[in-house]
Amino acid sequence: MAITALRPGPDTASQAVEPASPVAHFGADEPLMMDAGVALAPWQVAYQTTGTLNAERTNAVLVCHALTGDQHVAHPHPVTAKPGWWETMVGPGKPVDTDRYFVICANVVGSCMGTTGPASINPANGHPYGLDFPLVTIRDMVRGQAMLLDRLGIRDLFLCIGGSMGGMQVLQWAASYPDRVFAAMPIATGARHSAQNIAFHEVGRQAVMADPAWHGGRYLDVGTRPAKGLAVARMGAHITYLSEPALHRKFGRRFQDRDAPTFSFDADFQIESYLRHQGISFVERFDANAYLYLTRAMDYFDLAADHGGVLANAFRGTPTRFCVMSFTSDWLFPTPDSRAIVHALNAAAARVAFVEVESDKGHDAFLLDEPAMFAAARGFIAAAARERGL
Amino acid sequence: MAITALRPGPDTASQAVEPASPVAHFGADEPLMMDAGVALAPWQVAYQTTGTLNAERTNAVLVCHALTGDQHVAHPHPVTAKPGWWETMVGPGKPVDTDRYFVICANVVGSCMGTTGPASINPANGHPYGLDFPLVTIRDMVRGQAMLLDRLGIRDLFLCIGGSMGGMQVLQWAASYPDRVFAAMPIATGARHSAQNIAFHEVGRQAVMADPAWHGGRYLDVGTRPAKGLAVARMGAHITYLSEPALHRKFGRRFQDRDAPTFSFDADFQIESYLRHQGISFVERFDANAYLYLTRAMDYFDLAADHGGVLANAFRGTPTRFCVMSFTSDWLFPTPDSRAIVHALNAAAARVAFVEVESDKGHDAFLLDEPAMFAAARGFIAAAARERGL
Repeated sequence: MAITALRPGPDTASQAVEPASPVAHFGADEPLMMDAGVALAPWQVAYQTTGTLNAERTNAVLVCHALTGDQHVAHPHPVTAKPGWWETMVGPGKPVDTDRYFVICANVVGSCMGTTGPASINPANGHPYGLDFPLVTIRDMVRGQAMLLDRLGIRDLFLCIGGSMGGMQVLQWAASYPDRVFAAMPIATGARHSAQNIAFHEVGRQAVMADPAWHGGRYLDVGTRPAKGLAVARMGAHITYLSEPALHRKFGRRFQDRDAPTFSFDADFQIESYLRHQGISFVERFDANAYLYLTRAMDYFDLAADHGGVLANAFRGTPTRFCVMSFTSDWLFPTPDSRAIVHALNAAAARVAFVEVESDKGHDAFLLDEPAMFAAARGFIAAAARERGL
Repeated sequence: MAITALRPGPDTASQAVEPASPVAHFGADEPLMMDAGVALAPWQVAYQTTGTLNAERTNAVLVCHALTGDQHVAHPHPVTAKPGWWETMVGPGKPVDTDRYFVICANVVGSCMGTTGPASINPANGHPYGLDFPLVTIRDMVRGQAMLLDRLGIRDLFLCIGGSMGGMQVLQWAASYPDRVFAAMPIATGARHSAQNIAFHEVGRQAVMADPAWHGGRYLDVGTRPAKGLAVARMGAHITYLSEPALHRKFGRRFQDRDAPTFSFDADFQIESYLRHQGISFVERFDANAYLYLTRAMDYFDLAADHGGVLANAFRGTPTRFCVMSFTSDWLFPTPDSRAIVHALNAAAARVAFVEVESDKGHDAFLLDEPAMFAAARGFIAAAARERGL
């Protein structure tokens, strides 16, 4: 591993660019009604589909992406050229089998990979929205996805699946549109963001906003980018996606390209070099304001608060069958968060399976090669498919 | 709690100021021989003493401070006017009883409360050292403390005690000067810094160094201060000093001065306001470069590596009696870190007691009101005093 200083390279990402994926445009007569009290119009959703919708339109799967994810779930990423972010889970012969199911993945509202967000042009003044973009909630994201499905002529989802912020969307889908979701699989997530998670997000936002190149959110107008602040935010967040055992196994206290400390502030330890690389590569593909908006959306998420303080109320009478999954070493969304969801689903008399996967890979385990996760997903999806007559 | 934006106030701290405490000056003929290969001279140590040294000089206690601590352990802080940082543990009638013991606490080398550090004037050019200051290790800090004790005419410590980075110094004292330490109490610490802890420190350093006001470490010459970067670093670090249960109990998801979100990036949640306050108040009392140096010293600490990779080798034949203490909810230095120390001490045939205190307060528990900690400290210190004939 080479030494990488925290000096982000040239701007290789074009924010708010038209992505290499289909876009659904919604005009002035089709606003997105947002929780902030704003009717967003016009607006658009960038999405990807894989597989074939059957004649009965009963085999649609919505994959919901996490904080910094996008619609490129099973295709190479157009900016980074890396594999799709969930090719281990979604693809031909994979648990979400694109030979059998019609898979849709849409960039969430507030993000920056083609769906309308703070980097998009504000039609009111011809400039990027910046902080004039209304705050986004998980429910707004789901509303936008529902409008996309309507546009695609898809009423019912066979399956709604996602991890982390994607899992929040899955829960919100089940709560907002119970009769449109046959099966739901929220992974490594929670029905609300914890104080500690809000705290980590707030540090990341302050890192971005402390960067003078942020310019009060108007950096696209000014022609700068808060690359250093965003890189610091990403570095800090990245630690929370891993686990101490994983970091110890992967890096330990190993020095970088030598056997002894340099007695300097260079990236002496491999973990330092790794983190700097994470920070730098992130700013090349992500918009800083979008990061602020999406972290805020996660912070605001509290499904119980939206239902009189009782989480079970979000799911009363639901026809959806659930598979809730957590990972033993995930300390961002630890197993008790999933257990609270399962308890509420049980209290609501819902059908729910709970799988806690033994893993030392931390929160990111849901994105990695976890055979137990794939086995559970295969079993749950196969059983649901039989019930659905697929 | 009032809303506090992350806009640090005027510079109320004068870095490298002569503190309201005695200072031991060491001249050109008394250099501090540092692990980085530098002979630091002239240099100085600022310290505080409380209590009376007995005629036999056998009742001296060295209290070692943590990362952002200082010599003001049992006196009000001259900058913040807050109580000494360990008045719960050190004072008349307290476990470290200043009616019985002569307590010394010295600002560590590399810090900024009167002991020589990166904010001190470099005699070679008349400017503040900045990054020209040699990297500091825990062993350097301990060497400096030993020179201070020599200066004070104190050969033997009855007790060496400290938490976190202070606990690292306690371990280093026992390893470097076993015949000078009668009893040692390392609390909430480890014999080496974990990959995750290095990672968190690295994010904090990058936050400081990303601040343009840091000016490559020459901010004192330029007349600026990287206040925003340092505040972000402190905010992130502060999360690691607490625990998820403590944050949940103290803040939960409670909103700030209202019942609903503002749909803005204001400090909506109490935890956000609290963190911003932590960041702001820290920059008023601490030098940014000192923060870089001391975090680096902790990262470099690896007592086993200094002894052929076997931690027990650091303590073979030690006459010191130890009390090792951890806290159940401390995830920065979790109990397994303490257990590794205890195993090594047992392997070295040392006398060691191990106390794991049940607490939900996280790493900071050692600074707080923890009756079980005080009870264990009283018992351990009383038994050692009897043996010492005090």
